[in-house]
Amino acid sequence: MQNFEFHNPVKIIFGKKDELSKLATLVDKSQKVLLVYGGGSIFKNGVYDGVKSALVNHTVLEFGGIEPNPHFETAMKVVEIIKAEKVDFVLAIGGGSVIDAVKFIVSAALYEGTDAWDILAKGVEVKAALPFGAVLTLPATGSEMNSGSVITKAATEEKFAFMSVHSFPKFSFLLPDAAGSLPKKQVANGVVDAFVHVMEQYMNYPAGAPLNDRFAESILQTLIEEGPKVYAKPDDYEAMSNLMWSATMALNGLIGCGVPQDWATHMIGHELTAFHGIDHARTLAIVLPGLWTVLKEEKRAKLLQYGARVWGITEGTEEERVLAAIAKTEEFFQSLGLPTKLGDYGVTSITIDKIVTRFEQRQWKAIGDRGLVTPIVVRQTLEHQLA
Amino acid sequence: MQNFEFHNPVKIIFGKKDELSKLATLVDKSQKVLLVYGGGSIFKNGVYDGVKSALVNHTVLEFGGIEPNPHFETAMKVVEIIKAEKVDFVLAIGGGSVIDAVKFIVSAALYEGTDAWDILAKGVEVKAALPFGAVLTLPATGSEMNSGSVITKAATEEKFAFMSVHSFPKFSFLLPDAAGSLPKKQVANGVVDAFVHVMEQYMNYPAGAPLNDRFAESILQTLIEEGPKVYAKPDDYEAMSNLMWSATMALNGLIGCGVPQDWATHMIGHELTAFHGIDHARTLAIVLPGLWTVLKEEKRAKLLQYGARVWGITEGTEEERVLAAIAKTEEFFQSLGLPTKLGDYGVTSITIDKIVTRFEQRQWKAIGDRGLVTPIVVRQTLEHQLA
Repeated sequence: MQNFEFHNPVKIIFGKKDELSKLATLVDKSQKVLLVYGGGSIFKNGVYDGVKSALVNHTVLEFGGIEPNPHFETAMKVVEIIKAEKVDFVLAIGGGSVIDAVKFIVSAALYEGTDAWDILAKGVEVKAALPFGAVLTLPATGSEMNSGSVITKAATEEKFAFMSVHSFPKFSFLLPDAAGSLPKKQVANGVVDAFVHVMEQYMNYPAGAPLNDRFAESILQTLIEEGPKVYAKPDDYEAMSNLMWSATMALNGLIGCGVPQDWATHMIGHELTAFHGIDHARTLAIVLPGLWTVLKEEKRAKLLQYGARVWGITEGTEEERVLAAIAKTEEFFQSLGLPTKLGDYGVTSITIDKIVTRFEQRQWKAIGDRGLVTPIVVRQTLEHQLA
Repeated sequence: MQNFEFHNPVKIIFGKKDELSKLATLVDKSQKVLLVYGGGSIFKNGVYDGVKSALVNHTVLEFGGIEPNPHFETAMKVVEIIKAEKVDFVLAIGGGSVIDAVKFIVSAALYEGTDAWDILAKGVEVKAALPFGAVLTLPATGSEMNSGSVITKAATEEKFAFMSVHSFPKFSFLLPDAAGSLPKKQVANGVVDAFVHVMEQYMNYPAGAPLNDRFAESILQTLIEEGPKVYAKPDDYEAMSNLMWSATMALNGLIGCGVPQDWATHMIGHELTAFHGIDHARTLAIVLPGLWTVLKEEKRAKLLQYGARVWGITEGTEEERVLAAIAKTEEFFQSLGLPTKLGDYGVTSITIDKIVTRFEQRQWKAIGDRGLVTPIVVRQTLEHQLA
């Protein structure tokens, strides 16, 4: 096992919507609170009413309108409100996009440099941030229990991530019943997003960390078992509970302890979102099978372990078992209604050229767990998934 | 899945002893530090030197002499030193006994009542505690990443537990190489202690929490795989790393999320330590197989799941598979040198009478996950393990 540090101070409150009454004491009454949310689903699923009712004795402001793949431009509008109104505490209500946006907003609100975009584009360290909490209504990104955030600048189609010790929510409510009214497409995206988060920390090479391997496989098995149940019936509370907890555990730092991490699938996928607006999870479903196919020799040991333990693939030659593990994964994504070919989205080789050029311009010449993902591998991966 | 709250703010630093240099910045230089340790193994394994070297610019006091199953009486001596010397920060160095003692010490140091024993015996809430950190040199109890503590009053042979939000270490160093010089007996005790911690949160009844079930099974599988390697060769760094991380994960609250918990094995075992001074883990190895045998109908569903997933027991009738799962578990304990019968320790039915009487006097009439463990079940459990 590799050396590691692990620190995750987020308090999780998991249960039905009536748990929201705890907000009344979790946020001090002296604090002016800004609610930040997205497009309005919180008015339909009862979460808005639950929050307002719990905070009836607090001073509460609101900002609605955070978009999927949240925009820097929108976030900066919220920063202006925070400064003008002297907000003390921000409550993110929604899915990963809203929580990611709030992580950036609370950091930008106290940023002392001239342009908070530098936090994202130049990796300038966040030295302080306003405190914030989250109410999760959509299982997917894990943002509710980590310190990472991904923000897009609409003006330039650029998408960058940052993380900071100041970017952990003070608390996160996980409310499976609030997710029961989600469209199937969002549920499916959430399953695949969580699945690939696990893979970025698992599908590398054996690193003498059998417990974390098994934890990762536990999440994968649960997603494979529970994901289709939630996809078929999003208001199945039990199944949604298991999906939500799995998605949180997929990216709270735990399964990354002591093991190499990859994240090349995400880095390639982000470009497909930036250029074509394809949902984040859908870009991962495209890239992952392609990248594994191109690197199947380098990832052979873990692909065999994954195939055997997660899918029960124990028959055939090593090559056959590796290809079966990749095929099973791609079929799983497709069974949830996620196409896995670029052609399914009308994306052509023109985009591949643009992505490879971007990687070269950014000097991303050797990414992934062992620097195996060169611009050539990026090209091969995307070409493999063309149609 | 049941509703739950989870909050574990402990920062983990996992690696070799040279990680201890990080102590220099983890503890503020303005703080007067008290090192608390046990019998002196830290002078042989290099940890004492590493700590002193890192804290060379701090004001450091020391107290050695915390015993296994730490005594209230000893802890109160340390409290006097803290008050007299105005100590700001306590560093526990050693295994679970030292860390448990320090959790009580830092709480008792700021206790405003007349007798800090009330925290243990009467469950009086801890309202404040000094900050403390830990350097773990013995994988077993999980105390390094939780808020629980078990303390014994030598005068009355009483053993009680407490927990508090103020009892989480600020940080814990997990140093597998410091554990490499442990006697085999302590290693074996650690494996079994961690194993039974998992069982108290797993071997109950199905609760619709498949991810946490799998996490628990992951720890069990890893203990079964790595435990014998460490027992054979405690300085096998890789195997010791896996044991240490498994023991921490066994009792940091994670696998208890959303599931019923039992703890009857611990409550019965504590009495065997109190009356006969038998090592904590060894009492668990005695009690667990007996309790499962007595309650094999009530725990049937989980015993079958455990047998199949952890031991691969899939042949035979349900009754045969249940008995095989119990037998495999008892054999595993014995293979690590832990006897599982009371007779092995010279304990007779006189002690059983005393323990049952204590349970009755304390009104512990129905403990365990569903209140199934009556004084009669306690008697049957111990009588089953007599010889």
